[in-house]
Formats: sequence, structure tokens, C-alpha cells
Amino acid sequence: MNYIIGVDLGGTFIKAGAVSKEAEILYEISVPSRADINPQAVVGQIANAVESVRQRFKDDRLLGIGIGSPGVVDLDGGTVKYPPNFAGWTVFRLGEETSEAVGGQVRVENDANAAAVGELKFGSGKGMKNFLMITLGTGVGGGFVIDGEVFRGEDGGAGEIGHTTINYDGPRCNCGNYGCVEAYVGQKYLSQRVLDKLKSHPESIINNLVDADGEKLEPKIISDAANKGDKFALQIWEETGMYIGVAVASALNMFDLSTVVVGGGVAKAGKPLLDSIEKTVKKRVLSPLRPKVKILQAQLKNSAGILGAAALIAD
Amino acid sequence: MNYIIGVDLGGTFIKAGAVSKEAEILYEISVPSRADINPQAVVGQIANAVESVRQRFKDDRLLGIGIGSPGVVDLDGGTVKYPPNFAGWTVFRLGEETSEAVGGQVRVENDANAAAVGELKFGSGKGMKNFLMITLGTGVGGGFVIDGEVFRGEDGGAGEIGHTTINYDGPRCNCGNYGCVEAYVGQKYLSQRVLDKLKSHPESIINNLVDADGEKLEPKIISDAANKGDKFALQIWEETGMYIGVAVASALNMFDLSTVVVGGGVAKAGKPLLDSIEKTVKKRVLSPLRPKVKILQAQLKNSAGILGAAALIAD
Repeated sequence: MNYIIGVDLGGTFIKAGAVSKEAEILYEISVPSRADINPQAVVGQIANAVESVRQRFKDDRLLGIGIGSPGVVDLDGGTVKYPPNFAGWTVFRLGEETSEAVGGQVRVENDANAAAVGELKFGSGKGMKNFLMITLGTGVGGGFVIDGEVFRGEDGGAGEIGHTTINYDGPRCNCGNYGCVEAYVGQKYLSQRVLDKLKSHPESIINNLVDADGEKLEPKIISDAANKGDKFALQIWEETGMYIGVAVASALNMFDLSTVVVGGGVAKAGKPLLDSIEKTVKKRVLSPLRPKVKILQAQLKNSAGILGAAALIAD
Repeated sequence: MNYIIGVDLGGTFIKAGAVSKEAEILYEISVPSRADINPQAVVGQIANAVESVRQRFKDDRLLGIGIGSPGVVDLDGGTVKYPPNFAGWTVFRLGEETSEAVGGQVRVENDANAAAVGELKFGSGKGMKNFLMITLGTGVGGGFVIDGEVFRGEDGGAGEIGHTTINYDGPRCNCGNYGCVEAYVGQKYLSQRVLDKLKSHPESIINNLVDADGEKLEPKIISDAANKGDKFALQIWEETGMYIGVAVASALNMFDLSTVVVGGGVAKAGKPLLDSIEKTVKKRVLSPLRPKVKILQAQLKNSAGILGAAALIAD
């Protein structure tokens, strides 16, 4: 049997999985990233993870290793530049170093772009030539699929829809800018916004679901409350979808796109969030695009990182 | 001698010019567009203009006719869709109809894209492979040059940076959206904004340059005042550059671009405006792009429309 190894490189954990060409995850493991040490330590951990997977599939043929990485990725040699939260990592040839450590073909892509490739090859984007993939998690990532390929821009850094300003006078974002959509809907900002508003919504069942200091206020709690019909929770998704829709409409206008695939942890909110994104985009995008707008939920869920990375090899 | 005819199709006038391959305008005429009648009437006027130019160059060889048109343009057959302010014009094969009327090769592009091609072939973008052209006039247009070609998107409508939302709660734009950058810096909106603020700036010399009802408050007046050191006028360009810079930074993040060419009537404001755009973009764009940001003034000025259209043929 042929298989691919997909590696999802995160700041805390590296997840690696053996994936069939039909996008079935055959085996999956997770190891610490050691991102706090240096790039070489991270490569060591990737090699450990890859070896563990390989041991399980000794009699099978490894087609290649795909890595989804934070930061700006240069396809030539798999160079990864300035991934946030990785110590001592400026510009590092992750692809080549990994290939030297473990052998075989290694392809590296930015994680948001890899997620887009995953949806294109295995998920909601299957058979489509043009769409925007937006990933809602700790940050807000994006990947533009144009004519069946990821649009990478001059140096491979394209797709950063998370840092689209939706209010020039808005809250400060982690990136240094003000009013980025990420500063409204990135997980940390979203939780804080809910927490601030919760005080004036004593009727919301979210109050019963979080602990006193609000430390556990994760998107899942808002979704649980929304699913039970909690009005405040539904209003939060409505508002969150509006913020996202504003940035998405701007992106669709510039790229002349009409289909959006929404993934990442926060997207698990599902219909209340997606409906609000759709309503906002249809209201705000230029009129020739309006009738064509489609907002789809990503199909690859928990293992989207591994599957997206594996999709880099799937051709 | 070989020459090209460049046609700048506007809602009020059609400008047509004979252009050498070295981007020299040899002869130029202007006729009414008759856009208030129907598309056939417009083609008739284009044919009249082209014939007048041809008569002057009887002994020379016409290489082709380029047309810069408002609306979304499909390169196949030169179809122009829904140009704003053209009566009875839904979807019309402008290229084919013009070619039938006058003979010869006809190429049609969206006017903002044609402006980008003009700068790429003849102007500030010469020798560059990747840049954003932003056109500041009645509206705010854009053209993205990627790898030496105009990025057209799924249906040729890409580049609409003017309808990037810079404040989701901002003023209503002509397009139906709220807070588009065009709703802050499009010529009409800009004049209104200045007029509103002028009341509380009796010291500004702009007060002496406009008539009582402010009807003549054109960008040139703001520039004249700014050139004389008028603080209020300089503050207007500072603020205008900030609005533009916010939208430009979002665009550069998504496309991974670093060079911007600024054209159109409002761009004649020059240094005070461009400096403010640059300052804003450098402050707001993602950090890997910051050191590379370049904001350039367009080189093709008054005849940019004719030269951009001619550039469509210049290959």
C-alpha cells in the first residue's frame, strides 16, 4: 500500500499521520514541538514523529512527506521565514533539513495554504477551481485557490486575510496594526469580547458554563449555548460573522471570487456563524458577485492540519 | 510609421489618440460618448473617433485599437458587463462590435486594469513584475500586476480595491456597502468631507479659493492650498493618505505585494498625499513586507487613459 505522511507543525505540538491517497488517516501521533529551543530541535522532533509512523508501515511505500508550517514559506527548498512563537527561527530551510534527517521527498507549505490545498483535494473545494479558504482559530488565516492552485504572491506570503483592517480605528492586533479582523475574531480576542459583554447578560447560560475568571470561555461553550437557543450566544455568532463577512467581502472584490470555505476551530460554530457570514457578504460585496456567493463549511475537521499537509504530496 | 489607437471610454467623453510604440501621443481627439442612448450609439462614436485619427495617418500602419472601458471586461470577444452610468448596457460585445465597425484588431480591458498595463509598459511599473496600481478619481480603481500580467480573477472583475471596507460602520458608498475606501476618498466624497470641515477652519486659504456653495471644491484647490503651506489642506491630504493606506495595507497583505503605483486625478496632490500613504502602509502592513514597501507616483498623467489602452496592443 502507498501512503503519505502529513505533518502539522504547531507551536506546542507536532502532529504526524499516515494518510492514504484517499485521504484516510491510517495512524496519527503527536509529539512536543520544542519550538522554544531552536529550529534544529524542531527538525529532530519532526524526524522522531516521522520515524514512529514509518515503523508502523514498514512494508508499505512512503510517497512523500508534507509539512504545514506557520510563517512565510518559500517553496524552493522549503524555507520557512519568521514563524511566530518559534525561538531563534529567522530563515530556516525546514524542507531540506527534514529531508536530510529522514530521507525522501519533503514539501513544505504555509499551514493556511496547506489547509486550502487539503480542502481543494479532499474536502469542500473538491472539483472547484477558485475559492477562498479562511481558517478561524487562534489567528485568522487564509489561502486563495486560483485556477486550481494556491495563490502565493511575490514571495509566498499571500493569503493573509486575517490582517485585513475592518475598522481603521479598531482594537490593536498582535501584528501591530489596528482593527484587523483577527483582533475581533481571533480566539483570544473573541473570548475576551464575550467575557466583557457577559456582565450585562446575566440571563445567558454561558454564565453557568464558564468558571468565575472566565478562563474556560472557549468557542465550544458559546456554541453549546447557541445550540440550546441562548440568545446572547446567537448574537455573538451573528456579530462574529459580521466581522468576518466584512473582511471576506473586501477579499472577494479584489480577487473576483465568490466561493468561501470556512475552517478552523471557531468554524465548528456551524450554521449560526456561517449564515451570518453569508448574509454580510451578500450585502456588502459588489453587485455582480452577489448572486454567486457561496459560504461552505470546511469538510476536514480535527485532522485538517495533517490532511492538508498530506495533500501537498497527493498529486 | 507604425501606430496604435488608444481609446479611453468614459461616461461623458471618448478620448482617442494615435500612439507610437514608444508611448508618444501623436494626435488626440475627444468626442461625446452618447452613453445616455445605448451601446450601439457608443460604438458609433468610437468608430467616428477612430476614423478621425486614421484620416490623419493614412500613410501609416495601424497596429491595433486598445479600449479602456468601465465595467467588468471579459477578454474573450471584449465583452463589457454593466458599466456604471451607461444606459441600456447590460452585457455587450464591445470589442467585436467595434472591430466590425472599424476593422482591425481590437482589445478591450477594464479601465483600471488598462491603467496598470500602461504603467507596466510605459510608466512607473516599467521593468517590474509585481505591483498594485491604484487609481484615485471619481471612483477608486485598482489593478494588480502579478508576474508581469494583470490579475483578472475568475471572471475578469478582480482589482476592486476601491470597495475595500476600512470601517464597517462607515459612510454609505455608492456600491451599497458601508465604509468602502471610495466612500472616504472618491472625488465627490473627498470634496464633501473638506467642505464639512472647512466651516471650522476659517483660517484656511481654501475658503478664498472656492465659491460660496463650494461647487468648485476640486482636488486641485486642496493641492494649490497645500503647496502654499496651508495647514488645513495638508491635514486633508494626511487624512486622505491614511484612508488609502489602510486599504492598500490590507491588499498588500493578501497579495504579498510591496510596490504601489498611485495614479488618477487625485494623485496629482503628489508628495503630501503619497508620504501619508507610505507612512500608513509601513505602519500597518505585516512586518515582513514593511522594509520593502514602495509608493510611487504614476508616470502617465493626463493621457493615462489613452496610453493605458494603447499599451494593450503594445506587445
